[in-house]
Amino acid sequence: MADTRNRQRRHNRGQRQTSSRLPFTKMHGLGNDFVVIDLISHPASLSSEQIRELGNRHRGIGFDQLLMIDAPNRPDADFLYRIFNADGSEVEHCGNGARCFAKYVLDRGLIANSPIHVETANRLLTLHRNTDGQVQVDMGEPEFTPASLPLDAQQQDSYQTTVNADGSDHLIEFYAVSMGNPHAVLVVSDCENAPVKSLGARIGKLPLFPQGVNVGFMEIQDRNHIRLRVFERGAGETEACGTGACAAVVAGIKAGLLNNTVTATLNGGQLQINWQGEGHPVLMTGPAATVFEGHITLPKRAGTGE
Amino acid sequence: MADTRNRQRRHNRGQRQTSSRLPFTKMHGLGNDFVVIDLISHPASLSSEQIRELGNRHRGIGFDQLLMIDAPNRPDADFLYRIFNADGSEVEHCGNGARCFAKYVLDRGLIANSPIHVETANRLLTLHRNTDGQVQVDMGEPEFTPASLPLDAQQQDSYQTTVNADGSDHLIEFYAVSMGNPHAVLVVSDCENAPVKSLGARIGKLPLFPQGVNVGFMEIQDRNHIRLRVFERGAGETEACGTGACAAVVAGIKAGLLNNTVTATLNGGQLQINWQGEGHPVLMTGPAATVFEGHITLPKRAGTGE
Repeated sequence: MADTRNRQRRHNRGQRQTSSRLPFTKMHGLGNDFVVIDLISHPASLSSEQIRELGNRHRGIGFDQLLMIDAPNRPDADFLYRIFNADGSEVEHCGNGARCFAKYVLDRGLIANSPIHVETANRLLTLHRNTDGQVQVDMGEPEFTPASLPLDAQQQDSYQTTVNADGSDHLIEFYAVSMGNPHAVLVVSDCENAPVKSLGARIGKLPLFPQGVNVGFMEIQDRNHIRLRVFERGAGETEACGTGACAAVVAGIKAGLLNNTVTATLNGGQLQINWQGEGHPVLMTGPAATVFEGHITLPKRAGTGE
Repeated sequence: MADTRNRQRRHNRGQRQTSSRLPFTKMHGLGNDFVVIDLISHPASLSSEQIRELGNRHRGIGFDQLLMIDAPNRPDADFLYRIFNADGSEVEHCGNGARCFAKYVLDRGLIANSPIHVETANRLLTLHRNTDGQVQVDMGEPEFTPASLPLDAQQQDSYQTTVNADGSDHLIEFYAVSMGNPHAVLVVSDCENAPVKSLGARIGKLPLFPQGVNVGFMEIQDRNHIRLRVFERGAGETEACGTGACAAVVAGIKAGLLNNTVTATLNGGQLQINWQGEGHPVLMTGPAATVFEGHITLPKRAGTGE
């Protein structure tokens, strides 16, 4: 199937036109929302300016990320998966988006069965759909070295530091995990009343984290269940941070607090996280929902880029 | 045309079903965004809960207001126009929405020509589309009595009070105008640097305004042009407050500062306001834009009410 698509893609590339009427699908994964466009069926090229216009929630469609489905460049992939933020910048990975991507290509018969092999900007991603409709995403292997986050400290099992927030000093202990992006995970006794906003913002600004950090506040309910709130770098507290759920469960497993399969309850809903230990990838399973179908006449192209 | 529709409507009422697949159109007027649904062609009834779900920008379609087009109840109207906020509550009038309403029914041939006579919750509204595509909305007559806002003061041409904001006391002068909703209009020398957020919030909380107030900061550029920023009650500074533009221009005309036809530049774009003086309605003219077409499978009905 991939070979056929590659040939088609090569054919299209030479004569790719900007289609003025673009079909799209609005989807979400635990409230993280996406516009999905299928460039295989409807070849189009969008400038950064056009992506920003489509992303405007008042004058465009509105989305957290735009997901583009295209023919792959590598022979071992079924699709190429590109992800753009509403500011027009391209990002490498989005776990909630990958679940929607899998639902989209399976629901439309663009591929008959999972597993689906997806080429992203920096890796080959494998997606499975379970019989209950939930999608499992291979989120890659976690890393724990300070350099991987980066974290300005010598490697330890956990780290301690003092943070001033809400007018007083807090001695905090955290685990450091990279899921391709940096995470600090704190274990708390009461997630609902944890100072997520004040402490999350302050921790992200510590000199310890030269590129900032996503901060997870994890309440361990039992060895198979956590409640998690995540303060995301640059975004604040969010509905459902997929990499944050992976990082928290990995930290809990590594510390001997959790079993290998854990249900994480985030603000936006639940994710199942599985990790068999070092040398294994983290598997994240969760829902994907189609919200509506639409078509838009593309705003006049003003920017540059593909 | 209205009579035919009324009969059809009466026919539909007895057997109205909730259609599961609802077509809709996303539109905006100066960035104030709407989902428009045509209940004449696609009878449906939506509960408040369903409206809230559709209004969610991450898990639904997202809108500032939902505009419903239906057959009128009164013989002198072409359509019934109902407006709902994203929280499910019904509101009486929205000038930016009325322009989109007119564009929608004319573009689709639901009516051949303007003027369009529209039944709203509390009045009959007349809409005209100009040859340039801009739509003129009769916004009704302004009122100046303190009771009409309400304003807790004796009636004067303008009012003075002291407001504490940004750590110091500001002596302010304002005009009071009701456009069906309450407006306080301040004349400022530099709109871009006016303390819209801090002062707007404080003025709205003065005991003078027992039901709050929308606060306009108007810079008079010349007798035919103003720059206006509006702090809306309950919403903060907005892109384009139609009634705020009417109130500001009316206040300026009444104070002898402006001619009868004025272009108001708001954050989201321009509106033309015409007022011939007391006893006349305010006419507001501006653009309306279609963003995209879509269809959604209605979320399962959980609430009550039509």
